Amino acid sequence: METTRRSVLMGAAAALATGGQLSSISPSPAAAPPAGKQAPGFYRYKVGDYELTQIVDGSFTVQSLDGFVTNADKAAVNAALEAAYMPRDQLTIIFNPMVVNTGSKLILIDSGYGAAGPKTAGQLQANMAAAGIDPKAIDIVVISHLHPDHINGLVGADAGILISALGNAMPAQDVAYWMDDGNMSRAPAGRLADYFKNARRVMGVVSSKVTKYEWDKEVAPGITAFATVGHTPGHTSFVIASGSGRLLVQSDVTNHPALFVRNPGWSAVFDIDGPKAIETRRKFYDMAVAEKSLIAGFHYPFPSLGHAEKDGTSYRLVPIAWNPSI
Amino acid sequence: METTRRSVLMGAAAALATGGQLSSISPSPAAAPPAGKQAPGFYRYKVGDYELTQIVDGSFTVQSLDGFVTNADKAAVNAALEAAYMPRDQLTIIFNPMVVNTGSKLILIDSGYGAAGPKTAGQLQANMAAAGIDPKAIDIVVISHLHPDHINGLVGADAGILISALGNAMPAQDVAYWMDDGNMSRAPAGRLADYFKNARRVMGVVSSKVTKYEWDKEVAPGITAFATVGHTPGHTSFVIASGSGRLLVQSDVTNHPALFVRNPGWSAVFDIDGPKAIETRRKFYDMAVAEKSLIAGFHYPFPSLGHAEKDGTSYRLVPIAWNPSI
Repeated sequence: METTRRSVLMGAAAALATGGQLSSISPSPAAAPPAGKQAPGFYRYKVGDYELTQIVDGSFTVQSLDGFVTNADKAAVNAALEAAYMPRDQLTIIFNPMVVNTGSKLILIDSGYGAAGPKTAGQLQANMAAAGIDPKAIDIVVISHLHPDHINGLVGADAGILISALGNAMPAQDVAYWMDDGNMSRAPAGRLADYFKNARRVMGVVSSKVTKYEWDKEVAPGITAFATVGHTPGHTSFVIASGSGRLLVQSDVTNHPALFVRNPGWSAVFDIDGPKAIETRRKFYDMAVAEKSLIAGFHYPFPSLGHAEKDGTSYRLVPIAWNPSI
Repeated sequence: METTRRSVLMGAAAALATGGQLSSISPSPAAAPPAGKQAPGFYRYKVGDYELTQIVDGSFTVQSLDGFVTNADKAAVNAALEAAYMPRDQLTIIFNPMVVNTGSKLILIDSGYGAAGPKTAGQLQANMAAAGIDPKAIDIVVISHLHPDHINGLVGADAGILISALGNAMPAQDVAYWMDDGNMSRAPAGRLADYFKNARRVMGVVSSKVTKYEWDKEVAPGITAFATVGHTPGHTSFVIASGSGRLLVQSDVTNHPALFVRNPGWSAVFDIDGPKAIETRRKFYDMAVAEKSLIAGFHYPFPSLGHAEKDGTSYRLVPIAWNPSI
């Protein structure tokens, strides 16, 4: 019965898709060239009295998933990708910094890759311009942790703009980790060693502008930092509260939700302490589910906002509906 | 245990959200004014060689849901809204026309409200301009059915622009229904009678430009119309096929997915033949699930694209991930 019903519709639709029968409408004079360009990646919304803007810095497609999830085999990872209607054997990771306008302060949370990253990233400043946000008007850049996709935008070709901000607020615990020579000497060659070098390169440029913040305090009006360690030893999330509005900024508690919200027990290769990151992730999502909190995720698909629901021992991210009028 | 873990994190986060402790970062010179304006609502993607653009015409918030779902009580509707993290007792309905550039033809599917609709709609032409699409370059406007949010943009204040297109292709069966005097005379006063008057008002202006299309034929290169009746007697969906790419354009097989994809047996007040619309909906979604088809929905949250998965006797829409680079 099911099949029969489907066949009826498929007969109508699929057969025709290759029918090639042209309509009776006469040909047009000239073809419009394809635009080839995506819409500017920003999205505006309110949390209480605050006006927030999610801003895309771009994306990067990991072309081989060998070893990307350190504790699941490739077949399981591909099954998760297929369940999310995403292509197998690759993963497009998006980068979503955000701007908070409190009415008296303009705060950027994380800086994106800037010029020092994949060529499909580094769009933050162009998208800020599209959103009508002047980088020079930013008062504070708050950094969640010192991975390159979060700090590289502070320096490089466009360096002058963001570091002219009043201050770069960085988590004291993460700065301590990356600047510790012992930690660096113990990092195996490759990704982690490169991240140490990169963190020090950036700190070398911006250190005089850096204010180190502690957890469980406001880093800016209405923006409270709290520890969500594991991804990095000083990894930080935020609560943004204004009036009755409330937003959890998870930072990198998960990488792509189709893999790590759906499978909270999986570890991405970027997680420095995998088991700790998993413990943190479950605490964070249990809280978010119980509170029905709106969550912003740096690696959630743009506009990178959603709510989490429990699904057995796992979770599911329900993306928000785009509001055309804010 | 669950509670304890949560409390730990909540202690860190929630208590602090009201802590009011200011950071050590000094005050900024001047505050940036809020922008108060959403990003332009368009989204670009490829289906085979075709370049498609979803374009927002705006939205309308139904302020009372009394009678909105004709065969479910308000408590059930509110439960569905809450399950989707949406506000109770109201529903924001979005309008998403789309443009298909085949390389030789520029086709608009449905015209939005234009100037004759709620003041939160009628954004199509502004968003087309933002997307770099010249309305005068449109070759064909294909209409799925003759409800006001799909045809009103053809006339009114901006009338001249869209009706300068080579043709407006309308489903023969729907035109026949709305132009039949007997049908009109039997329509009860109120919404349905108003829709008859509106359809005739629009047809009065554009009829010389209208080409009536039949189902199971191409209405434009690669765009095949097929019957999905019930919502209206001539309601039409489309398959867009180019190379190996394929897209199902559902039109109004469902209104908001949080209500009617999740509850396919519910009827919206707009469905002229509720039971028939339900039967069509199940056929359409069974096909889309089996085929893992990408679906565009006129009333899906922007960018109004997703895949459907089966969930018991119901379905769930999985929105696509925004691609920042197309």
